[in-house]
Amino acid sequence: MPKKRIAVDMDEVIARVVPKFLDIFEEQNNYRPTDTELHGKKVYHLPGGENIRKKLHDPGFFADLPVMPHSQEVLRNLHEHYEIYIVTAAQEFRNALPDKHDWLQKHFPFIHWKNYVFCGDKSIILADYLIDDHVFNLETFQGKGLLFSASHNLDENRFTRVNDWLEIQTFFNQQIDTH
Amino acid sequence: MPKKRIAVDMDEVIARVVPKFLDIFEEQNNYRPTDTELHGKKVYHLPGGENIRKKLHDPGFFADLPVMPHSQEVLRNLHEHYEIYIVTAAQEFRNALPDKHDWLQKHFPFIHWKNYVFCGDKSIILADYLIDDHVFNLETFQGKGLLFSASHNLDENRFTRVNDWLEIQTFFNQQIDTH
Repeated sequence: MPKKRIAVDMDEVIARVVPKFLDIFEEQNNYRPTDTELHGKKVYHLPGGENIRKKLHDPGFFADLPVMPHSQEVLRNLHEHYEIYIVTAAQEFRNALPDKHDWLQKHFPFIHWKNYVFCGDKSIILADYLIDDHVFNLETFQGKGLLFSASHNLDENRFTRVNDWLEIQTFFNQQIDTH
Repeated sequence: MPKKRIAVDMDEVIARVVPKFLDIFEEQNNYRPTDTELHGKKVYHLPGGENIRKKLHDPGFFADLPVMPHSQEVLRNLHEHYEIYIVTAAQEFRNALPDKHDWLQKHFPFIHWKNYVFCGDKSIILADYLIDDHVFNLETFQGKGLLFSASHNLDENRFTRVNDWLEIQTFFNQQIDTH
């Protein structure tokens, strides 16, 4: 039986963007937003954060993002049983493209470049599972979507929610068991 | 009815790579290979061409490629009736990523960046049609594949062949007529 395929988003799923946004916000506004202020929102939706999103166009912005906890070990495990594709909506930011490539090579060397997909609209993706923090990507996906928790999606309840990579490991352990 | 979706390869379909390869070959070997020598092959498969493929890693290689004749006018027409995605296996060459992005913005400004897909293995692509010069991409595609003629695929007969963009226009005119 061919391996089933898992498509994995990058930003806020394997790469942490929010801490960098919060640092920039704090530098510009002299305070750090609370989780309560961020509930249901992104940092650049807060008053005082309007100009932060344009930083995504800067060369290097995506180069030094921290890795999401446990994503490396869990993806390394899943890689044994599934085809793993990294599917990131990167095309709005042309300077992000080589940075994201380098970041994946550095932090996820066991995933082949053949399995990188830098796209825009993810409705083009054919896979069995998609792990993503954006509801609009899961809405158009034809397989099983897993919603990775992020401040902006906390009130969403239409998809299977995973709060961290250990929960993803548990979810797929159950899938393997029921094959 | 939602628009059907056409995935379009870049190199040797909308962007001409072979003339640049031939220029490099000629510079290195003091002669230009004939069509007969190239039949069933790529330039870098010829004796004397072995080192040409690594030029694809050079920044700028993809920046100044000529546009395939009639691809702009035909894609502009098809864009009215179909969703057009540009799907290119770009991930082997990290320096190609921004060059390809800039090239698309310059030569196909009517195609939105949301519809760019820079991938490796194209079996991840969900679309109704794929226009590609590589048989291995059509083999794993679940929709209708159109083989765009190139020296290396001339002996292939498993797919609907299109020799140029005017033939692609004709093919899709017939699809629209029979909707």
